[in-house]
Amino acid sequence: MRIKAISAAMVLAFSQYVAADEGMWQPHQLPELESILKSKGLEIDAKSISKLTEFPMNAVISLGGCTASFVSPKGLVVTNHHCAYGSIQYNSTTDNNILENGFLAKQPSEDLPAAPGSRVYVTKEVSNVTDKVNAGTDSLTGKARFDAIDSKRKQLVAECEQDESYRCNVYTFHGGLEYYLIKSLEIKDVRLAYTPAMGVGKYGGDIDNWMWPRHTGDFAFYRAYVGKDGKPAEFSKDNVPYNPESFLSVSAKGVQEGDFVMVTGYPGRTNRYRIASEVDYVFNTVYPMVRKHNSKYVELIEENAPEGSQARIAYESTIAGYNNYIKNFGSMIESFKKGSMYSRKQQFERDLSTWINADADRKAKYGAVLNELSELVAQSQAHYERDMMVGYIHRSQMMSTARKLYRLAVEKQKPDAERESGYQERDMPKIKAGLQRMTRRYDETVDKAIMLYFMELYAALPKEARLAEVDKQLQLENGFNKAKHQALLDEMYANSKLADEKARLWMLDLELEQLNQSSDPFIQYAKAIFAVMKQIEDEEKELAGKQQSARPALMEAIIAYNKSQNKPVYADANSTLRVTYGTVGGYSPQDGLVATPFTSLEGLLAKNTDVEPFNAPKKQQQLIREKVYGQYTGGMNTVPVNFLSNVDTTGGNSGSPTLNGKAELVGLLFDGVYESIIGDWDYDKNLNRSIHVDSRYMLWVMDKVDNAQNLLDEMKIVK
Amino acid sequence: MRIKAISAAMVLAFSQYVAADEGMWQPHQLPELESILKSKGLEIDAKSISKLTEFPMNAVISLGGCTASFVSPKGLVVTNHHCAYGSIQYNSTTDNNILENGFLAKQPSEDLPAAPGSRVYVTKEVSNVTDKVNAGTDSLTGKARFDAIDSKRKQLVAECEQDESYRCNVYTFHGGLEYYLIKSLEIKDVRLAYTPAMGVGKYGGDIDNWMWPRHTGDFAFYRAYVGKDGKPAEFSKDNVPYNPESFLSVSAKGVQEGDFVMVTGYPGRTNRYRIASEVDYVFNTVYPMVRKHNSKYVELIEENAPEGSQARIAYESTIAGYNNYIKNFGSMIESFKKGSMYSRKQQFERDLSTWINADADRKAKYGAVLNELSELVAQSQAHYERDMMVGYIHRSQMMSTARKLYRLAVEKQKPDAERESGYQERDMPKIKAGLQRMTRRYDETVDKAIMLYFMELYAALPKEARLAEVDKQLQLENGFNKAKHQALLDEMYANSKLADEKARLWMLDLELEQLNQSSDPFIQYAKAIFAVMKQIEDEEKELAGKQQSARPALMEAIIAYNKSQNKPVYADANSTLRVTYGTVGGYSPQDGLVATPFTSLEGLLAKNTDVEPFNAPKKQQQLIREKVYGQYTGGMNTVPVNFLSNVDTTGGNSGSPTLNGKAELVGLLFDGVYESIIGDWDYDKNLNRSIHVDSRYMLWVMDKVDNAQNLLDEMKIVK
Repeated sequence: MRIKAISAAMVLAFSQYVAADEGMWQPHQLPELESILKSKGLEIDAKSISKLTEFPMNAVISLGGCTASFVSPKGLVVTNHHCAYGSIQYNSTTDNNILENGFLAKQPSEDLPAAPGSRVYVTKEVSNVTDKVNAGTDSLTGKARFDAIDSKRKQLVAECEQDESYRCNVYTFHGGLEYYLIKSLEIKDVRLAYTPAMGVGKYGGDIDNWMWPRHTGDFAFYRAYVGKDGKPAEFSKDNVPYNPESFLSVSAKGVQEGDFVMVTGYPGRTNRYRIASEVDYVFNTVYPMVRKHNSKYVELIEENAPEGSQARIAYESTIAGYNNYIKNFGSMIESFKKGSMYSRKQQFERDLSTWINADADRKAKYGAVLNELSELVAQSQAHYERDMMVGYIHRSQMMSTARKLYRLAVEKQKPDAERESGYQERDMPKIKAGLQRMTRRYDETVDKAIMLYFMELYAALPKEARLAEVDKQLQLENGFNKAKHQALLDEMYANSKLADEKARLWMLDLELEQLNQSSDPFIQYAKAIFAVMKQIEDEEKELAGKQQSARPALMEAIIAYNKSQNKPVYADANSTLRVTYGTVGGYSPQDGLVATPFTSLEGLLAKNTDVEPFNAPKKQQQLIREKVYGQYTGGMNTVPVNFLSNVDTTGGNSGSPTLNGKAELVGLLFDGVYESIIGDWDYDKNLNRSIHVDSRYMLWVMDKVDNAQNLLDEMKIVK
Repeated sequence: MRIKAISAAMVLAFSQYVAADEGMWQPHQLPELESILKSKGLEIDAKSISKLTEFPMNAVISLGGCTASFVSPKGLVVTNHHCAYGSIQYNSTTDNNILENGFLAKQPSEDLPAAPGSRVYVTKEVSNVTDKVNAGTDSLTGKARFDAIDSKRKQLVAECEQDESYRCNVYTFHGGLEYYLIKSLEIKDVRLAYTPAMGVGKYGGDIDNWMWPRHTGDFAFYRAYVGKDGKPAEFSKDNVPYNPESFLSVSAKGVQEGDFVMVTGYPGRTNRYRIASEVDYVFNTVYPMVRKHNSKYVELIEENAPEGSQARIAYESTIAGYNNYIKNFGSMIESFKKGSMYSRKQQFERDLSTWINADADRKAKYGAVLNELSELVAQSQAHYERDMMVGYIHRSQMMSTARKLYRLAVEKQKPDAERESGYQERDMPKIKAGLQRMTRRYDETVDKAIMLYFMELYAALPKEARLAEVDKQLQLENGFNKAKHQALLDEMYANSKLADEKARLWMLDLELEQLNQSSDPFIQYAKAIFAVMKQIEDEEKELAGKQQSARPALMEAIIAYNKSQNKPVYADANSTLRVTYGTVGGYSPQDGLVATPFTSLEGLLAKNTDVEPFNAPKKQQQLIREKVYGQYTGGMNTVPVNFLSNVDTTGGNSGSPTLNGKAELVGLLFDGVYESIIGDWDYDKNLNRSIHVDSRYMLWVMDKVDNAQNLLDEMKIVK
């Protein structure tokens, strides 16, 4: 582990209580870590966690973007409220506002269908396919190499997905040093069994997002259904609850400060092994720029979609998403300035080079790799600003829809296996859902205003940095003129049918030839710039192919270097199943302040204003005032609501079960603290803290607030 | 003590570590508290603190609005940077920006004159004059009573001030239950001896104001000078440093968590004994309304004085002042909603009534007093909104200047002793300074915009709630019309000379008859509304006179009630010398967070951005990086910067010496935490924390950063 390597001295200098528990481990690595896991408090056999088809790992599932786990023999699934949010919203009506009020199916027959496209993925097989993927690529470089690997991956996926019950993917580890084919059972009938009220599940809302102290009951329950034959099937009344191979028991005793915890889940993406020059560019150029443009983006929406308007409603989730990024990037920029990641990266690269050069064989093998990668990274940054500005123009929903439809028509001319990823038959449901979703999330005035704004920024780039075809199509050859371009866009929007859902779906089925005949100005634009955008894409693939040689070589060197110091290396997160372990504990966000590891019902009540997002249900408030704690204190003098630990997590881990040393569920991971956002790049043992909803609070809400006795009865509660 | 009385059970239920140390005690009360003071850690004789002319009390001085203390035999005075701010600013020039860079006189002859009007007041005598003040008032009520008391107080002050070396005041205790005449030596030649750079003294600025964690080096040094005869004298080169009767030694060892501390100083004003109905009205009506109007006030300034303009510079301190109030009121409204002050007040009044009614004598004496006061309070609220709106209109500097000049001319017709307070000869320097100050703090556009805005709000009141004469003068009889009233104000401002300092000072000397002839529209306005405003004032005095009977009676009952439970009672703060004691310790501002009691040099550096207000001097940053702590750690592994304690303080306490059990200076009080702002109304033992600058940090800055060896040499440092 690269960062651990250089901070070993520091680690030793600090308290042993919360040791550095960095690492998102592949299950098969756990036996290697057995002694440290045991010393920290793991009571079950580390080998058992390494087997995906055994307890507890076979109870941990993916929702695609979120993690969840089975908690009953009848297919009951627990995840975060924010992971089930779409399904809760989908079932919410003015008459029966379950988003606001919560929902409990008193028996499985009352379960509500989850939002269309909801899936439960149960990992069934993980196979190392590195040799297969790399076969015959040794002599290849650049785009040829990229294409060969891409083609082999698609082939492996297609073979694996012969059985319709499964969804398969080939995942890249260590930048291409290893490839794994992961085969997951794809359960297609997912239903909502229970959700607390929004005043529990989203308590604190966006204000408390990424913040501590926290009092969010971020949990909800799905139920997985399969056909009577036990195989995944589309929704049908005849389907039956899925019978998982195992499920987790839920602890009513919870954890205490200092206790061992582990989190199993599907973290999305980290960048822990990026080289110093990449870090420099991202934090000093990309993030500040994107943050600025995104802030403007939100401003433009808010200006053009006044509060209370229909347009504003359409853009609420877009605004929330952008604000989320703005806060996220703000934290990362701040942490980067305060921290020492960059200098530590530089130091590590010097140390690594010294180690490489100290041995002739190593020098021959890895001596050039760091420089080679630096060079490739620099090349990939060359057109960043142009690509970003064009990218913002193409974020216009009219633009992106036209370009997607046009690209699809192009791809459809090829056999399925040869099509670009994202345009294969297996991707069609997703494309269609996107075209439908636009209806609820689009407003012409807003879309146009954003496009106009970014056209002006793009036009301000030097001519040689711009794309002639884009200039031509948007009449920007001689610069930007507000009135003229406003008129141009007015005309384009007026003459386009893409704002109409039926028209979009109709175009989905058109052949390239037919689309080429279309008079829709956005389709015409997509057609006109297709060649140049394809060329840019090919250049990117050329570079990506070259990086696919360089990065694995660097990772190989890093792993060897760490191995020479007896340090195992974990791969960057890539949406595959991982295990991270650590301890329950607080931290000091700044000099003079300490975040303590637990929050309480009383703290929840103190925050309450009865105004969203601090609007706990009245009944809950009353229970807290009356100190009705039930059997959910776990030895504390109150019911704990959320807790902190130093486990190493990121987006995608949301909903992950937090397990104690016996693999009992003691909480659900749902967030990280503000100071840990930079954790995607750099794990800081003093600041990296994950936030969990406490199982005691979950059970208390189910028992005392929502009377979900039927669910508690089918679960296995450890008292 | 009313609040302590009802929370006794709670006090016992909590940790003993930081006990409830509520109370701003008059020195003469301390012997009563001796056993508790000893048990907490006072090592010197409690009686010695009760004597104002003995060590340590005779070293504690008032600057008028701030507190300070002598720290050398050569008249060296230490206080807060923010208390000396005006003098630092006054001596700052573009060429020699001592505000920015700091200043050190290498010898007394280099001391710089403090801002005009700067004073050091040394309390010399405190006499109980209750009987004298009340003599002959028994049969009086209402305004007659108010006037009689007012007249007697002025007489006592005038007699006392026969000796020009002294400034005297009669202070009201317990709402009029007691009056004390306080005689203070008035040192008129005050000079600036040393100030650290603003990046030390105002580190964190308005952002950190009232906040923890804190890293402000809020200290500066004056030197008091007197004539060669040892008597106070106006500034002269021939003056010599004042030789105080005693001075405080300064500890380089500092304090630890849990240590006893006491703070001696001049707290300005608290409202701890207001009745429930007053509290209700203030927190639910007055504060929210004032906060709203003040926010608008700032908004109007910012709109009409664009950033960077000369006008904005003129209003910077006004904006800062208003923002300070907005933050202050915001905190109080928030704390009031979260807390239980109102219900506790109600409970206390019920308990008190029960106790009163349980005894025939008590019932006869106090039985009616609570209702009587409630009634008076309700009466005083009757015209609140009208008076507030008229008040905002009269905040226009043209208005207030005209009204002040006119009132002065009226008062000058009477013998000095009979004049209204604030318009006596002793008040002339202050009035003149105000007229001069306006030159630097006035802009016509801003002044007009504010007045216009509040005229509109005033005009929106129902006609019967308005003042006919004000309506007539401002042509508001038929409501507000923006264009018309804009024109009216344009004309008034165009025809007034009051924007000119010379004209203002010239008018200062005019007789009433001359002013009556003035064609200045603002003077004419002042003249026209004089009668009605005087009538309102008289009505207020009538009510005040009635309250002067009722409040002392209630306080007498409260004191007797507490005495029956062996509890001493402290009086509300009233700018007289008080002592408060407590312990060094943190607190939990909210569930899941703990404020730890010390901040450190490292925390200061972590906050540093090199942008004001987080711009520590480069040299200081370097010293911190190199861990040059000197002998100023006091056993910690760094130099502590600020610390928290639970002493009971308020505005006016700024600059107060914080003393350890041996009466050595271990810090300077300079602020309270955000959650303690409501402390002016209610001391909450869990949240009321004062912020001190640590003596170790002061000495470290002086020694290591600013090389103030000459001052350290004349001080007595306890190592």
